[in-house]
Amino acid sequence: MSDLEIRPAAPTDIPAIVAMLADDPLGAQRESPDDLTPYTTAFERLSGDPNQHLAVAVRDGRVVGTLQLTIIPGLSRRGATRSIIEGVRIHADERGGGLGTQLIEWAIAESRRQDCRLVQLTSDATRTDARRFYERLGFEASHVGFKMAL
Amino acid sequence: MSDLEIRPAAPTDIPAIVAMLADDPLGAQRESPDDLTPYTTAFERLSGDPNQHLAVAVRDGRVVGTLQLTIIPGLSRRGATRSIIEGVRIHADERGGGLGTQLIEWAIAESRRQDCRLVQLTSDATRTDARRFYERLGFEASHVGFKMAL
Repeated sequence: MSDLEIRPAAPTDIPAIVAMLADDPLGAQRESPDDLTPYTTAFERLSGDPNQHLAVAVRDGRVVGTLQLTIIPGLSRRGATRSIIEGVRIHADERGGGLGTQLIEWAIAESRRQDCRLVQLTSDATRTDARRFYERLGFEASHVGFKMAL
Repeated sequence: MSDLEIRPAAPTDIPAIVAMLADDPLGAQRESPDDLTPYTTAFERLSGDPNQHLAVAVRDGRVVGTLQLTIIPGLSRRGATRSIIEGVRIHADERGGGLGTQLIEWAIAESRRQDCRLVQLTSDATRTDARRFYERLGFEASHVGFKMAL
């Protein structure tokens, strides 16, 4: 396959990102790719925050992956900064080809560059393949993730 | 018990917060209450970030609880903003007295005020009481939490 570029998302990437968010067993019920307005508003808010890094993976000029990395300073663990990975999506054409690994490895490298001492993420318990995937990358499934819709 | 105030943490609260972080089965190995320098540096970074809310619970002029609430904008779920709760600690004298519930309810109310559509947190799987506590408050233990030390 040709070279892959991982770079910050631009406003013109929004339709491709939303299409990937929606092309997912859980995302299909939660997204509205026909109305990009709420995504554009959210993108503007993300762009203005230096602790937010929305990244896209691009191959042959086409957006084929995305994730969001958030840098979180904090007092615990001797004032350790941590990062949180959210919204990992890989285009259907690229699944199983190692792009997920490349994207997560990019996020780990970027977290180190930002002096994070911990990188964390949660995965829906129904995504049964995710556990093996993240453990292979060096993550430990040490926590229970709780969510509440407001 | 006398009235409780939940308010943003001030620099003078740092020693009491660090003491609570350290007075914990997991925190005891990770914190250094005798050297506050890294905590002071982290506090300054937190204070400059409008999406970070380090809160303390105060009773009779004494800091008896703390948590950190982070507001995270994002594209997924139709551009939903979410919040993440980290670093929840209750002073030993107050445990079992309902203060944990009050602090988490404060964080939920603050998340609503900031238009979050989701509030989430992870809890170490070895904290066996935590699951019942968070489920009683309305959280769903729907996710697996992965961490990697850098």
